[in-house]
Amino acid sequence: MSDIAHDRVVIFDTTLRDGEQCPGASMTFEEKLEVADLLDEMGVDVIEAGFPIASNGDFDSVAEIARRTRRAVIAGLARAIPADIARAGEAVKSAQRPRIHTFVSTSPIHLEHQMRKTQEQVIDIISGTVTQARNLVDDVEWSAMDATRTPIDYLSRCVETAIKAGATTINLPDTVGYATPSEYEAMFRRVRAYIQDRVANPERIVFSAHCHDDLGLAVANSLAALAGGARQIECTINGLGERAGNAALEEVVMAIRTRRDVLPFETGIDAGMLTRASKMVSAVTSFPVQYNKAIVGRNAFAHESGIHQDGMLKNNTTYEIMTPESVGVSKTSLVMGKHSGRAAFRDKLKALGYELGENALNDAFTRFKDLADRKKVVYDEDIEALVDQGIAVAHDRMKLVSLSVIAGSHGPQRATMKMEVDGRVTTEEVEGNGPVDATFNCIKAIVPHSAKLALYQVHAVTEGTDAQAEVSVRLEDGDKAVTGRGSDPDTLVASAQAYIIALNKLQAKRQSLNAQASPAAE
Amino acid sequence: MSDIAHDRVVIFDTTLRDGEQCPGASMTFEEKLEVADLLDEMGVDVIEAGFPIASNGDFDSVAEIARRTRRAVIAGLARAIPADIARAGEAVKSAQRPRIHTFVSTSPIHLEHQMRKTQEQVIDIISGTVTQARNLVDDVEWSAMDATRTPIDYLSRCVETAIKAGATTINLPDTVGYATPSEYEAMFRRVRAYIQDRVANPERIVFSAHCHDDLGLAVANSLAALAGGARQIECTINGLGERAGNAALEEVVMAIRTRRDVLPFETGIDAGMLTRASKMVSAVTSFPVQYNKAIVGRNAFAHESGIHQDGMLKNNTTYEIMTPESVGVSKTSLVMGKHSGRAAFRDKLKALGYELGENALNDAFTRFKDLADRKKVVYDEDIEALVDQGIAVAHDRMKLVSLSVIAGSHGPQRATMKMEVDGRVTTEEVEGNGPVDATFNCIKAIVPHSAKLALYQVHAVTEGTDAQAEVSVRLEDGDKAVTGRGSDPDTLVASAQAYIIALNKLQAKRQSLNAQASPAAE
Repeated sequence: MSDIAHDRVVIFDTTLRDGEQCPGASMTFEEKLEVADLLDEMGVDVIEAGFPIASNGDFDSVAEIARRTRRAVIAGLARAIPADIARAGEAVKSAQRPRIHTFVSTSPIHLEHQMRKTQEQVIDIISGTVTQARNLVDDVEWSAMDATRTPIDYLSRCVETAIKAGATTINLPDTVGYATPSEYEAMFRRVRAYIQDRVANPERIVFSAHCHDDLGLAVANSLAALAGGARQIECTINGLGERAGNAALEEVVMAIRTRRDVLPFETGIDAGMLTRASKMVSAVTSFPVQYNKAIVGRNAFAHESGIHQDGMLKNNTTYEIMTPESVGVSKTSLVMGKHSGRAAFRDKLKALGYELGENALNDAFTRFKDLADRKKVVYDEDIEALVDQGIAVAHDRMKLVSLSVIAGSHGPQRATMKMEVDGRVTTEEVEGNGPVDATFNCIKAIVPHSAKLALYQVHAVTEGTDAQAEVSVRLEDGDKAVTGRGSDPDTLVASAQAYIIALNKLQAKRQSLNAQASPAAE
Repeated sequence: MSDIAHDRVVIFDTTLRDGEQCPGASMTFEEKLEVADLLDEMGVDVIEAGFPIASNGDFDSVAEIARRTRRAVIAGLARAIPADIARAGEAVKSAQRPRIHTFVSTSPIHLEHQMRKTQEQVIDIISGTVTQARNLVDDVEWSAMDATRTPIDYLSRCVETAIKAGATTINLPDTVGYATPSEYEAMFRRVRAYIQDRVANPERIVFSAHCHDDLGLAVANSLAALAGGARQIECTINGLGERAGNAALEEVVMAIRTRRDVLPFETGIDAGMLTRASKMVSAVTSFPVQYNKAIVGRNAFAHESGIHQDGMLKNNTTYEIMTPESVGVSKTSLVMGKHSGRAAFRDKLKALGYELGENALNDAFTRFKDLADRKKVVYDEDIEALVDQGIAVAHDRMKLVSLSVIAGSHGPQRATMKMEVDGRVTTEEVEGNGPVDATFNCIKAIVPHSAKLALYQVHAVTEGTDAQAEVSVRLEDGDKAVTGRGSDPDTLVASAQAYIIALNKLQAKRQSLNAQASPAAE
């Protein structure tokens, strides 16, 4: 497909920006750091850490990720507005390898309806904003928003302008998920041909694909872009992102890896970490992964037993083009129990990919022992749930002290709850329509609030009815949405925990919003 | 992409065959009929109703779907084995438009490891089995299993043989989800060129694509096949299917519809029914649809409010390439309550796409009134859950009479349950690790069984804490897996219902298995 053999493709992950800005997927500061650490360890080349002008919270997380990340380039997003670019430059400045990623719409439909600018005005804006960014950092990426609906001649002139102003990465996104592979490939070929004789050293410019999956073509379009000469792919874990999401990082990486014969490219991704990354992002956002999701769905490697039963299947490769192990699905699940010691627990955490500090480890171990007392067998997933939850309960104003519920088919159901709020313990007994409703009504009685329940989900973390239940609760208050997770063998206790964690998050979010001027988000 | 303007593409739905055979997605007889009715109404051209030789249950559902379906061709699958073909012919014979779909592996890896046959032996098998099928029905489809890993010369000879023996549809599946779009397109071009001068009236042969999504390319490959001359696409609702699933029908249909400018094709699908079909298949299988799933995910049309907030968005088309309404997402949710009458309820059901018989309607209305007594507002989703559940509880040996549970943070949790088994009512009081565990332990105490809980899921069907909870329970016993769903405002009651429904299904399945000789499944 390309004339260059096994070219290196830059993997640009935007889970923390395009992914995090999709409705309901917002993450806390700590969750963002956790995801960024994992992405860096996995070998992602560029981490788009956020949109610094959008809020103080976004700025802080981009700045902290910039400070702590060892390998990856850290990008901050900025509209074509001087204040955006200054703020993005400020956020990424302490990174080892900082990047400002600035974008402007180029399509007639966006220019007319959204920007109300002429084509020539936009050319001037590109020149000015890319120059400004380049004065702050050496590595500037420029994106032509809605590139796939922009006339090719004008798009090419915009790209030439951005390169001459100092951009070294040119991203041509399919913002609305509209392109087909052959169109998308042709666009890259034509723009690259146009700049060939118009800019100095055109081969140093990295062209980038950014695809949305509205028609189910995000991965195919990303690969088509490579054939057209692109060498960076913007993608997200689990394909998280606006609307139908972005190209899924795991699918892009495994397509390139599995079909090296016809896709002569390589990435720097450690594919063995893909499953773990998928689980973490799913847990942090409470967005379930479809069972038949490619690479990371629970059925991705599950084969129907029909032909197996007939005893005909003698060779893995008859139905498997890649092994589960290659993407980090571990088949063995080392069982832990109440007699497992602290050293074994630490080893297990390490095997699961967690490296905790001494305090967090002690805290997790205490909760592990408590769980082991109540549950015969503790599986890997239980431990993951327990550690993931630990991150959330760190500094909370509201805590669950105790809960008891009476429920069943002869309602009304009734819950009695003790909660600690700012150190003071309050008890309420409230009825409800079902035990979960009664439990949540208790919380509302103790802490009156206007937030609405937008999502309630229960997952049994491991198999068996004595599974530790993991509950997700999403609360929405106006335009703010947060997700809380709780885990406990008792679903109702887990539900109460999840709700209270979400409420704590919402309060924290409100405080940080009050502390700043005017939020904006792409 | 094609030389023929706006050719009609045959949509071949295999949700009931390739979809249903994926682990955990098995459907009951009634559920299959429901799905088939919807597919027919939606305008699917060919419904692959099942694999008749696999079990008596499969045979019965294919035969009943053949009998009742008014528009679509009904296909039954058969291996290249005389008994399979005879059984498939028997199952589809009462259809208005019956089809036998027979397949054999053609790739060296399958021939060597699975079939232990030479290429010439396979050519003979194709000739014999297609001839046999053609003697039973006029419409025979032949598939080259693992076509994309078969040398093109041998594949072409196999296709020629199948056509000469009477096949009129030739399917070249990407069985392992391995192909890239350009390879897949080229395969169709080459095979079509080969047969051009070797068979009579080659233009009457319909070539067919069947793609799996292991590398995230199923939809792109299906569209590439059209460019290569295919005119049938095999796909499933929600992309259900083995491993990472098949090409999603809704994505294929909407890509063709949205990009008619570059994909000069059309289908007979009523796109306005896509959302309803997606919901039905998700409910019947308990396979959740990813939020960012294209076309039918809950976020597929959800836009982040950032730019909206800025007041810049003045025109839908700036970010939307299709409207939610075009795929049947209704924005208005007509609210029903305890004062709603039977006529209003029937109208509502009709608007939701349900047409129930008098008995089923009465039954659903009774349950609706019962729900309306306990819940302030009854939403569309509540009604859908209630009707969907009705299908499952029809003829059961075991029934829940009553349940009461005491739960909370000071375990052990305790449940008291009354169950009716074959008309006899039994009561048990049992402890458990959490209220769900206690509830399920009661069922085990009343009806001892060896099945294991493989999945436990709770969905709040509508928003708010007084939502009607929908619970899915998957039980596995050896190689049999069934899913039960229950809905009730009390999650624990819904859990007990779901478990008992699954147990009923498992028992029904065991009986039908015992009643037949040797099951086989592709």
